[in-house]
Amino acid sequence: MTTAVDLIKRAKAASGSIGQANTLVKNAALNAVAELLVARQDEIIVANAIDLANGSQNGLSTGLLDRLKLDEKRIAGLADAVLQIVSLPDPIGEVLRGMTLPNGLKVSQVRVPFGVIGAIYEARPNVTIDIAAIAIKAGSASVLRGGTAAENSNRVLVQILQDGLASVGLDAGAVQTIDQFGREGAQQLMQARGLVDVLIPRGSASLIRTVVDESKVPVIETGDGVVHVFIDETARQDWAVEIVHNSKTQRPSVCNALETLLVHRAAAVRVLPAVLKKLADTGVTIHGDEATRAIYPAAVEATDADWAAEYYTLDLAVKIVDSLDEALEHIAKYSTRHTESIITEDIANAERFLAEVDSAVVMVNAATRFTDGGEFGFGAEVGISTQKLHARGPMALPELTSTKWIVRGAGQIRA
Amino acid sequence: MTTAVDLIKRAKAASGSIGQANTLVKNAALNAVAELLVARQDEIIVANAIDLANGSQNGLSTGLLDRLKLDEKRIAGLADAVLQIVSLPDPIGEVLRGMTLPNGLKVSQVRVPFGVIGAIYEARPNVTIDIAAIAIKAGSASVLRGGTAAENSNRVLVQILQDGLASVGLDAGAVQTIDQFGREGAQQLMQARGLVDVLIPRGSASLIRTVVDESKVPVIETGDGVVHVFIDETARQDWAVEIVHNSKTQRPSVCNALETLLVHRAAAVRVLPAVLKKLADTGVTIHGDEATRAIYPAAVEATDADWAAEYYTLDLAVKIVDSLDEALEHIAKYSTRHTESIITEDIANAERFLAEVDSAVVMVNAATRFTDGGEFGFGAEVGISTQKLHARGPMALPELTSTKWIVRGAGQIRA
Repeated sequence: MTTAVDLIKRAKAASGSIGQANTLVKNAALNAVAELLVARQDEIIVANAIDLANGSQNGLSTGLLDRLKLDEKRIAGLADAVLQIVSLPDPIGEVLRGMTLPNGLKVSQVRVPFGVIGAIYEARPNVTIDIAAIAIKAGSASVLRGGTAAENSNRVLVQILQDGLASVGLDAGAVQTIDQFGREGAQQLMQARGLVDVLIPRGSASLIRTVVDESKVPVIETGDGVVHVFIDETARQDWAVEIVHNSKTQRPSVCNALETLLVHRAAAVRVLPAVLKKLADTGVTIHGDEATRAIYPAAVEATDADWAAEYYTLDLAVKIVDSLDEALEHIAKYSTRHTESIITEDIANAERFLAEVDSAVVMVNAATRFTDGGEFGFGAEVGISTQKLHARGPMALPELTSTKWIVRGAGQIRA
Repeated sequence: MTTAVDLIKRAKAASGSIGQANTLVKNAALNAVAELLVARQDEIIVANAIDLANGSQNGLSTGLLDRLKLDEKRIAGLADAVLQIVSLPDPIGEVLRGMTLPNGLKVSQVRVPFGVIGAIYEARPNVTIDIAAIAIKAGSASVLRGGTAAENSNRVLVQILQDGLASVGLDAGAVQTIDQFGREGAQQLMQARGLVDVLIPRGSASLIRTVVDESKVPVIETGDGVVHVFIDETARQDWAVEIVHNSKTQRPSVCNALETLLVHRAAAVRVLPAVLKKLADTGVTIHGDEATRAIYPAAVEATDADWAAEYYTLDLAVKIVDSLDEALEHIAKYSTRHTESIITEDIANAERFLAEVDSAVVMVNAATRFTDGGEFGFGAEVGISTQKLHARGPMALPELTSTKWIVRGAGQIRA
């Protein structure tokens, strides 16, 4: 019987085919995938309907069922995302550094494929296409564990990816799903050091924590965000109102949404009422410390848990601080090092915030929602890394590659 | 009582001080360390003598005792290595990429310190100075576990590093040794995710394997090498003789030394006798397959274990293959992906070898001993990464840093 390890080995065996393919061939495969997605949308929708029915029966929340659902419009969106990846520059072969050594050796550092990329995520079939398509462009095979809840949808999507590869003569084994093996398959993927070069978890904080804790394969942690905005003493009121509102409410369920607002005491009376009024008008519940509640009595009392909360809802923790130092200390203590922004007119405070806040993205006078591969112009996003190793912040094609050193000699030996 | 975790937290607390220090201050600290090493050499030698005496008593091998030993000349060498790091460019603050987004946001990716770098290594006090000094230049604190066998030497060296930091007003806590906590301290270092940003094991294959398997902190694997040279059909005999001899014998105990020689059958009779004669003259024992032994009867019989052997001695496995394909397959199966070199006059074969061998460093017509931070002109080396995540090949200052994204706005919000 086939095991998850067999399929991981199959991906590894196919990694040479996709790894050596040139850009024209990889783009042809992706174009074929985009066409097949549209041509076979009925098949996808039928498979997806089974997942949705199972999900309803198993009591999946409305939000999760919505993420799971694929319809014509969403399938067209998936095809567009694949075509977007076709249009991006191929990262493979880029020469990053190079030199001629005193002995004449010509040395260059070249971007190369990882080999096999693993991904563990939850019931979002769009991630299946996103990650596999990015892996194809980056010259790597992929092994996907998308969760039992999306098993039927993912099976068809992976068939389409495999058919797209085969249609241009590439080894179809370079995309694999291991959903059918359940949790045991995920375990085997996490143990597959030597077969899988990097593992990317995407999903809830608990899923990511499990993968980070258990994986023997190197992991890129894509993190949830306890994201802060600090309204400094000199902040413009209009910017504060708009940036806080946008950061909190434009899409509250995502990792770059604002969770805690810190306000300099000297700006509180001047700025905070207008900021909180606009939030309240959009239905945001304010969890305030004592000083906030004195200014804004409608706030509920914030507890220690609120400072660490990733609400992902229309809730916001608000704290009034005495100084930039206190804001920096609070951020150092509670931030998940995803994104923080300062609103200020003071250049020294802006520079200090940029230098001292140790997060993947640090901003001045901008909404935290801009931490995004699409907004950064990367054209594709695999997730937002909150670790410091390998990649930090929005990850796209170059972040899904490795490098190697090429040395060209003419008989040189070491003295 | 102080625990290893206390000292790790102390390093974390000090990481802001070293992380925000500018190049002049960091260089001043390193200059002070270099001076103190020489000024306090008697103190170092006394402490080292205790370690050497304990080592003799505990039956350490002559080789290990030699690595452990510090004398005036070696201490001067350590001071020189620190001064060498002073002379290198500061990686921190380098802008790697940047763009202005359509909405006017100015985005840049800047090199920043890791924060806290952990290192686990074995009874080599020179590594204490190397890694701590590189970490200081790279703006990071370091937590060093150098092994109980070097505990007394390391304690004095770490005191000198701390005194050097304090002498320029930096937080002395930015260098810590946890040797005194034995294996338990190493365990706590490996569990310190969130406090330690990256962990670097240096030493035997078994030490590295243990750290890779057990660490919850992201690891950069610095690997041992089953290093191959392939003599292609068209190889020049003189280059083959010199490159193989140099790769094997110039320093057989290190990771970039040759371990397995593959020879194209069509080159064997023409090239191999001269290659093996020069090796034999230097005392190399040849472990040959049947075809090799037919040409060179003095060879001992190679077993399967020889193809996977990291001898680190004057032993060499030799195999005759029918084709470049067979050589590539053998390398794919047995290589530890450190360094491989082809000797050839055939440009197509050279390019194919460079493209298809999936190792940190791939060479044409050059000795494998060139895989080295010093040879590459990096000025300092932390080890040679054989993993694909974050850094691959010789690691120096830039490899011991992370990045962050800086976003400068003027009230932008996301539409």
